[in-house]
Amino acid sequence: MKYEKKILDILQNTLGNKRCGLHEPIFAGNEKNYLNDCINSTFVSSVGKYVDKFEKELAVYTGAKRAIAVSNGTSALQISLKLAGVDEGDEVLVPSLTFVGTVNAILYLGAIPHFIDSEEETFGADPKSLISWLKKSTELTSQGCINRKTGRRIKGLVPVHIFGHPCKLDDLLSIANDYNLVVVEDAAEGLGSFYYGKHVGTFGKLGILSFNGNKVITTGGGGAILTNDEALADQAKHLTTTAKVPHKWKYIHDTIGYNFRMPNLNAALGLAQLEQLDNFILSKRKLYDFYEKEFKKFKHVRLIKEPKGCKSNYWLQTILLNKSIFNKKDIILEFINNHNFMVRPSWTLIHKLLPYKKFPRAPIKTSLSLEKRIINLPSSADLI
Amino acid sequence: MKYEKKILDILQNTLGNKRCGLHEPIFAGNEKNYLNDCINSTFVSSVGKYVDKFEKELAVYTGAKRAIAVSNGTSALQISLKLAGVDEGDEVLVPSLTFVGTVNAILYLGAIPHFIDSEEETFGADPKSLISWLKKSTELTSQGCINRKTGRRIKGLVPVHIFGHPCKLDDLLSIANDYNLVVVEDAAEGLGSFYYGKHVGTFGKLGILSFNGNKVITTGGGGAILTNDEALADQAKHLTTTAKVPHKWKYIHDTIGYNFRMPNLNAALGLAQLEQLDNFILSKRKLYDFYEKEFKKFKHVRLIKEPKGCKSNYWLQTILLNKSIFNKKDIILEFINNHNFMVRPSWTLIHKLLPYKKFPRAPIKTSLSLEKRIINLPSSADLI
Repeated sequence: MKYEKKILDILQNTLGNKRCGLHEPIFAGNEKNYLNDCINSTFVSSVGKYVDKFEKELAVYTGAKRAIAVSNGTSALQISLKLAGVDEGDEVLVPSLTFVGTVNAILYLGAIPHFIDSEEETFGADPKSLISWLKKSTELTSQGCINRKTGRRIKGLVPVHIFGHPCKLDDLLSIANDYNLVVVEDAAEGLGSFYYGKHVGTFGKLGILSFNGNKVITTGGGGAILTNDEALADQAKHLTTTAKVPHKWKYIHDTIGYNFRMPNLNAALGLAQLEQLDNFILSKRKLYDFYEKEFKKFKHVRLIKEPKGCKSNYWLQTILLNKSIFNKKDIILEFINNHNFMVRPSWTLIHKLLPYKKFPRAPIKTSLSLEKRIINLPSSADLI
Repeated sequence: MKYEKKILDILQNTLGNKRCGLHEPIFAGNEKNYLNDCINSTFVSSVGKYVDKFEKELAVYTGAKRAIAVSNGTSALQISLKLAGVDEGDEVLVPSLTFVGTVNAILYLGAIPHFIDSEEETFGADPKSLISWLKKSTELTSQGCINRKTGRRIKGLVPVHIFGHPCKLDDLLSIANDYNLVVVEDAAEGLGSFYYGKHVGTFGKLGILSFNGNKVITTGGGGAILTNDEALADQAKHLTTTAKVPHKWKYIHDTIGYNFRMPNLNAALGLAQLEQLDNFILSKRKLYDFYEKEFKKFKHVRLIKEPKGCKSNYWLQTILLNKSIFNKKDIILEFINNHNFMVRPSWTLIHKLLPYKKFPRAPIKTSLSLEKRIINLPSSADLI
């Protein structure tokens, strides 16, 4: 039997014959109540009780001291990097295997992405190749970690928790410590994922979440900044709300701020969704078990399991084509997408995209292999 | 009788004794229906029929060929300026008397605001002082209009329609033409305002609207780009949606884009609001008539009327203290705000705020006087 037909069989055995999107939101809780309450109260915009509640509940859930709700994950990362001290002209280490927003957030600050390789277990930044690259290509000075080739300071490292799986945080934090790099975690895909019992996005100086429509929970569009530093949290709130100094009527802005607020309307949706998060994740983890049972009969692919010591939200269920069949990826994608199941490949590696080719990079090898072999499967929480 | 007591009397005569905010939204139409429909359809995020409908209806209402819904007015202006050709290091002429977002949008592009004065009839940029400043301080070369002092190109002019009153567009467009400046209109406050029969925001190469919670209609948070140029509209849509090239599954981004989408949820609210816009404006214009009747008995202030040839949305009703009493502004604000009516002064002139002091500016005189004398009055559409 052809590979694509075999994979279709597995999906049909697992999911039945209904049409399945990649990741669709589920609104089975207080969504309509809270939205109607916003309308009744007339508070739909930049202030309101749902923003406060959503922020508070996000902090409780993630264990971060503070959460600041903003317009999306990209803006959350932009502000977090700024608050972490990334300046114009600094370089920031970032995996090439990520959503483009991770990299754009760096560029919006006038900083420069410096691409690094990922590894095959978690799809996150590879500590081994990173350390050998830093040894070889940088110098630690009183100014920080300097890229010998460009002469620029490498200020930060952005670990990304790909498809909801925590990356190798211990090793990456240790490298960051040795090389004087500030860590800002991109946990856009990681709400509900834990690394040795601690929620992702709470390990770095700051971390971010996304609530885009395709995420584990959604606010329509939205994101959040997580931090354990109260002063940074206050600054994050200030910077994302036009840096207006509180006053009954005066308009004083004490720095160049941003309009990155999450409207109360969107926070209302988010709060209703957050109340259901545990159930969503339970279902998504159960879906993994179903896929696992089926895929273990098919030796040409590996279903991606949560890393050791981690509890993943299984945002996107993923198979990795074995090297024996990676040249079949496009055939498989075409065939399965034409048969009621939405599947997709990894993002194109960012360093290969025309506007990003010119930026510095470490040797990228494993990511190139992963890019050829990753396929995300239908992953919504209500599929089984 | 003291001035502040006299103004309070006028407000009470006009509005009664109820507590009145400055500008509160009214949800008397299809808001709940459309929001519930979003939830039922599961389309709350970056695509959906309400985004398409809202954009289409905005274009119909304003007469612009195209409208692109985005996350807010500031992001709309940032993208519009970029598409108008404003590059890093360019200067952009902008009134100092405006909301800080107007100026920040310029700065996000690495461009430099060049502050100009406003005039007393419309509170918009003053053509007379602008032309004499350009004559004196710039040189027209093959590179465009060059600021003699800084050596930088002055690329654009951002007219702002303050409090919803169209500024002196004919004169400003003519100056822009003479000095090779691209015009991007900040009509954040101007939805429903017309200059000689044509909607504001449709005169420049691009224009922008805002739907923040305090505007004539609201989407919670949101804005729109208006343009008559189909190619620019397509680019605006592309740039504000991460510059992803359409493909069934591939992730190709052909330029450095932005995540400035308006979620479908917010567009649903916007569409319901837009359906009521004509009524809102009718009420707001009627409110002006009521204020006019009362304020004409009080010679120490001037109630601001729509400019000649214009139909204003009267977003914020405004009185201008006569020079005889401008030193009473803070006393009046304090007293009235303590008596159930929310009133506010003009924004602090942007060129006076610490982070903006260093940027170039024309002589600013009238704006300084206006800043001391402007008071905005309760202006919601349901006050009378």
